[in-house]
Amino acid sequence: MSVVVKTIERAQTHDIVTLESQGVATVHEAQGRTGLMASYMRPIYPGARVAGSAVTVSVAPADNWMIHVAVEVCAAGDMLVVAPTSPSDAGYFGELLASSLRARGVQGLIIEAGCRDVADLTKMEFPVWSRAISAQGTVKETLGSVNVPLVCAGQLVYPGDVIVADDDGVVVVPRETAAQVSEAGAAREAKEAETRKRLVAGELGLDIYGMREKLEAKGLRYIESVDED
Amino acid sequence: MSVVVKTIERAQTHDIVTLESQGVATVHEAQGRTGLMASYMRPIYPGARVAGSAVTVSVAPADNWMIHVAVEVCAAGDMLVVAPTSPSDAGYFGELLASSLRARGVQGLIIEAGCRDVADLTKMEFPVWSRAISAQGTVKETLGSVNVPLVCAGQLVYPGDVIVADDDGVVVVPRETAAQVSEAGAAREAKEAETRKRLVAGELGLDIYGMREKLEAKGLRYIESVDED
Amino acid sequence: MSVVVKTIERAQTHDIVTLESQGVATVHEAQGRTGLMASYMRPIYPGARVAGSAVTVSVAPADNWMIHVAVEVCAAGDMLVVAPTSPSDAGYFGELLASSLRARGVQGLIIEAGCRDVADLTKMEFPVWSRAISAQGTVKETLGSVNVPLVCAGQLVYPGDVIVADDDGVVVVPRETAAQVSEAGAAREAKEAETRKRLVAGELGLDIYGMREKLEAKGLRYIESVDED
Amino acid sequence: MSVVVKTIERAQTHDIVTLESQGVATVHEAQGRTGLMASYMRPIYPGARVAGSAVTVSVAPADNWMIHVAVEVCAAGDMLVVAPTSPSDAGYFGELLASSLRARGVQGLIIEAGCRDVADLTKMEFPVWSRAISAQGTVKETLGSVNVPLVCAGQLVYPGDVIVADDDGVVVVPRETAAQVSEAGAAREAKEAETRKRLVAGELGLDIYGMREKLEAKGLRYIESVDED
Amino acid sequence: MSVVVKTIERAQTHDIVTLESQGVATVHEAQGRTGLMASYMRPIYPGARVAGSAVTVSVAPADNWMIHVAVEVCAAGDMLVVAPTSPSDAGYFGELLASSLRARGVQGLIIEAGCRDVADLTKMEFPVWSRAISAQGTVKETLGSVNVPLVCAGQLVYPGDVIVADDDGVVVVPRETAAQVSEAGAAREAKEAETRKRLVAGELGLDIYGMREKLEAKGLRYIESVDED
Amino acid sequence: MSVVVKTIERAQTHDIVTLESQGVATVHEAQGRTGLMASYMRPIYPGARVAGSAVTVSVAPADNWMIHVAVEVCAAGDMLVVAPTSPSDAGYFGELLASSLRARGVQGLIIEAGCRDVADLTKMEFPVWSRAISAQGTVKETLGSVNVPLVCAGQLVYPGDVIVADDDGVVVVPRETAAQVSEAGAAREAKEAETRKRLVAGELGLDIYGMREKLEAKGLRYIESVDED
Repeated sequence: MSVVVKTIERAQTHDIVTLESQGVATVHEAQGRTGLMASYMRPIYPGARVAGSAVTVSVAPADNWMIHVAVEVCAAGDMLVVAPTSPSDAGYFGELLASSLRARGVQGLIIEAGCRDVADLTKMEFPVWSRAISAQGTVKETLGSVNVPLVCAGQLVYPGDVIVADDDGVVVVPRETAAQVSEAGAAREAKEAETRKRLVAGELGLDIYGMREKLEAKGLRYIESVDED
Repeated sequence: MSVVVKTIERAQTHDIVTLESQGVATVHEAQGRTGLMASYMRPIYPGARVAGSAVTVSVAPADNWMIHVAVEVCAAGDMLVVAPTSPSDAGYFGELLASSLRARGVQGLIIEAGCRDVADLTKMEFPVWSRAISAQGTVKETLGSVNVPLVCAGQLVYPGDVIVADDDGVVVVPRETAAQVSEAGAAREAKEAETRKRLVAGELGLDIYGMREKLEAKGLRYIESVDED
Repeated sequence: MSVVVKTIERAQTHDIVTLESQGVATVHEAQGRTGLMASYMRPIYPGARVAGSAVTVSVAPADNWMIHVAVEVCAAGDMLVVAPTSPSDAGYFGELLASSLRARGVQGLIIEAGCRDVADLTKMEFPVWSRAISAQGTVKETLGSVNVPLVCAGQLVYPGDVIVADDDGVVVVPRETAAQVSEAGAAREAKEAETRKRLVAGELGLDIYGMREKLEAKGLRYIESVDED
Repeated sequence: MSVVVKTIERAQTHDIVTLESQGVATVHEAQGRTGLMASYMRPIYPGARVAGSAVTVSVAPADNWMIHVAVEVCAAGDMLVVAPTSPSDAGYFGELLASSLRARGVQGLIIEAGCRDVADLTKMEFPVWSRAISAQGTVKETLGSVNVPLVCAGQLVYPGDVIVADDDGVVVVPRETAAQVSEAGAAREAKEAETRKRLVAGELGLDIYGMREKLEAKGLRYIESVDED
Repeated sequence: MSVVVKTIERAQTHDIVTLESQGVATVHEAQGRTGLMASYMRPIYPGARVAGSAVTVSVAPADNWMIHVAVEVCAAGDMLVVAPTSPSDAGYFGELLASSLRARGVQGLIIEAGCRDVADLTKMEFPVWSRAISAQGTVKETLGSVNVPLVCAGQLVYPGDVIVADDDGVVVVPRETAAQVSEAGAAREAKEAETRKRLVAGELGLDIYGMREKLEAKGLRYIESVDED
Repeated sequence: MSVVVKTIERAQTHDIVTLESQGVATVHEAQGRTGLMASYMRPIYPGARVAGSAVTVSVAPADNWMIHVAVEVCAAGDMLVVAPTSPSDAGYFGELLASSLRARGVQGLIIEAGCRDVADLTKMEFPVWSRAISAQGTVKETLGSVNVPLVCAGQLVYPGDVIVADDDGVVVVPRETAAQVSEAGAAREAKEAETRKRLVAGELGLDIYGMREKLEAKGLRYIESVDED
């Protein structure tokens, strides 16, 4: 039942880097508005943006044993993705584990549970997206698995999928479509740059996007004002 | 059913500016502890304080079409106030819409739903108070209304009401009472400045506010200490 | 029923100072993973770390009268701990009360309810850990008690217990065990410093903590990879 | 500030009775999907369905004084609608107040807070829709208002509006449109009866509602099956 | 650290029986509005009312080992009170444990976590008040304690305290004051019976409780009606 | 992007029937404590227990169009499983859709959103497990998919997986392992029947499960009593 898969396939580095530069909102749109984790996954400090290959860890509630196991199979550029088998906000992760992951080049952590030592992690600039911040200690008693598919914050994650995370949250890009999504994201960025210029210049989205006709067809009515008395 | 009211009445600019300088807590007290939105409305970054005239937008769940419509009827100094007809934490609003609103001089956004591109919005210093941060995309399919009265985060907002927002949350001041509330706020500020001086000097609120007698009348008992064994 | 206990016993200052330097996560572990308040208690700004002796205040919902009463019995170095008798997120506490507490040398506030004036409190660097941020005003009608044992955010607090609070949350150390916990914390810190060095150098926790044998005994299975098609 | 309005206008009894017979879902649809209170408003026992004219009560948090005041202005067939000025789940209401309301012919209670004595209320068949069930006692210290417009569970309620409540929740029908909504509801019921017959006979909604063409136009693709391996 | 206390003191049976007959709301009022657990503690089926002596169990998150241990120290008439050391909604308890407790005469269970087999427990009429219903399995790996003071759903419970539970929730009566609270409850019941009779006969609480003068003194204003146009 | 898969593979009927008879808690344990949906998925009325093959429906927030599409591909014995692409508690489903599903022999509905007409559904005995009860209407504007893998309430569901649902919640059994899980469940039931007999007769789980030695090895200490003063 409990298994550690040592080797996983990863996406191309240049695709991962491109997805990171695009950020969560663009990537989410570029893959058809899929893959976004639940909005309760929040960064422990503002301003981080990272992307990396998912090393997945299925853990027991309030038991962080398998995170220690997972460190060994991480490679430079990876993102650790941890989900408990039943809800827990215990503090599975702190500065010591972050030091260990950083020594292997891991970029950050996504955990649908609690995180602690957040002042230290902020100082180290080791980014974590979590459901809670909690110092609550965990035990090391029950096995789980590493690099199996799991559901984290409402999204299915396969080992090797690309995780993109920033202040907007966390999005999962299937490994097989990473190249295609990063291309779609680039196209979207180009188009948005154009739109942005026009909006800043004072043009209306109503006109740029050509919405007026469809609004009228749906029956939107404009009135000058409401008399109040 | 779906209507856009193009012209609204607004409060006097100097009253709006005064209310902004007083901030949410003072304004809320000055109007008799009314008008405060629910505490789940949080700023996307700390330190902003703004006030402006409400342009209201009633939107369908996960559908941001009407925000695009609303831009056109905004004037310099306005605050956009958006509420969905059923709960949603989708990311209705991002940096492009903010660029468009800024081009018209809009001060900020209040949205009882999700917001995205928060890193960009922070950089732009375009303040948003929202129920959630989420990159989840929205559609443009269902009409809503602009500049109709609506309930946002538990408060009734009429178009043209003054919205004051800061790190403490969001408060609504009815347009008709803006002058009177800003005066009451100024009186409160003057009184508090006096009290602050005395408190900083070490006087007790118990004495400044003359509470001791009422406490005694209600039956408050002082004892020196509790013996523990 | 309503009582104010004027004098309480406090822990030794050097123990309090040591506990403060160790922080919440270490202290919580050092006392056997007990005493941690619920994770919804969050600091109003990042980066604060304080410890002090608890002056406890039991208040009625949305009624902050007893906080005014409590100020008088606070001494330099204390932490105010406030819990309502039924859930409330009203804004019991703001900058004026903070000024008054600071004049007496109080270090900070723990409140299982709401706090307001957070921009001012941040500027003053008066730290507060609360369940909510809300400008909602409170009344002064119903008595409560000061320096009685109470439950705050799931933890029992006796007056004089040591409260340690930082970005990870809030932990309660019973007064009687403060010395012993601070010693255990120091031992833990020494050991962690050693471990940190080895982790940073690339050693694995699996080896440092000697986990491999126990993992194998429990039945953990390693496999090289999963064939995908 | 605190006021009791003794006389209110009410809708026609036959419209209220018709709306009651239609139930919440039908009425909500019949008025264009507006007026529904938040889904956390739940009945204390299953199976009740009532409608009546709103007598509104704005109360302080954890203070039920104004409910006692409101009883006097209730008439037979009314529904009491209670909302606190800041969130509270205290037990404002129990069997004694229900006995008093029943003596005046009041139909039930809508309260965005807590209710107690639910076993007794169930036995009496006095229906209550509340946000919480809680025995927590309340005080009688702070004034509020009776028969002023208020926001309850996200909906604006004017005194005299028709409240319809059943196992699906609570909906507000503005007094002025009660007749028109009850007619629209009747039309909807007639149409649904027809549709129901066809659905029960095995016809598909896709065909009855003529959806196939629009689905195809939007690009829906049917495939026979997915090969799995 | 982990300890089982085998013998506890209990309150007098006749006091426990009296408290049970009074129910949660009356008992809570009779002891000065204290001791009520948080309102998220709900019965798994309606209509149960029990009281008994608390046997307390402190458990690890998602680990029900200590409940098995606790069975042995239970006596006829007891109530089991279980709280995890960090939040968990796992299903710690089901029909087998209930069969075992019933064999010893235990009355019911209070658990600040999850419960399962609720259809069977309902059929057996073994009442449980829990935070969640969940089939999620638990492990038996980590020790806890039995019959130590603990905080459950916001209330401090000492072994031997009287637990009263019904459809309104759960209240804790300290063992030492059980007699005195049950007497106060009886007095309250007598007084309420009198009041009920008058309310049912149509008298107003305003008059029975003599509230009119105080309301007027506080400034309550009655107006006949509001002109609407 | 939007697709309807018309034919799916299903598990053997006798396995589905066996799993239904075992119920959620047993099945969840029998497959190694996996597959349980989040505990916020609750039945709209107590006492139902069903199992069937999953027909999955991915829907837009507050848009129930695809449920109408899904009806056509359902077969007798199926369970509809619906999840929105972003959180919604709107009332996607009511009595008319239930009539249509029943006409095709569908057993029930699992929906991570809202349901309405619950009084009618209860009368029809059409069981629904949902996240919310809400009359809020939905639109028919945005496509989704039918019979694609999706995440519902934290669990991955493939079309054709067996869904078991009762008062304890909802569990997903992968189609491929249905036979094996139902066998494991049967073995568990047999063993539990034996244990139940012994527990009812007053034997302790401590002895039946042989826990005493392991507890002692972990360091559990028994003491006779605590002296109180």
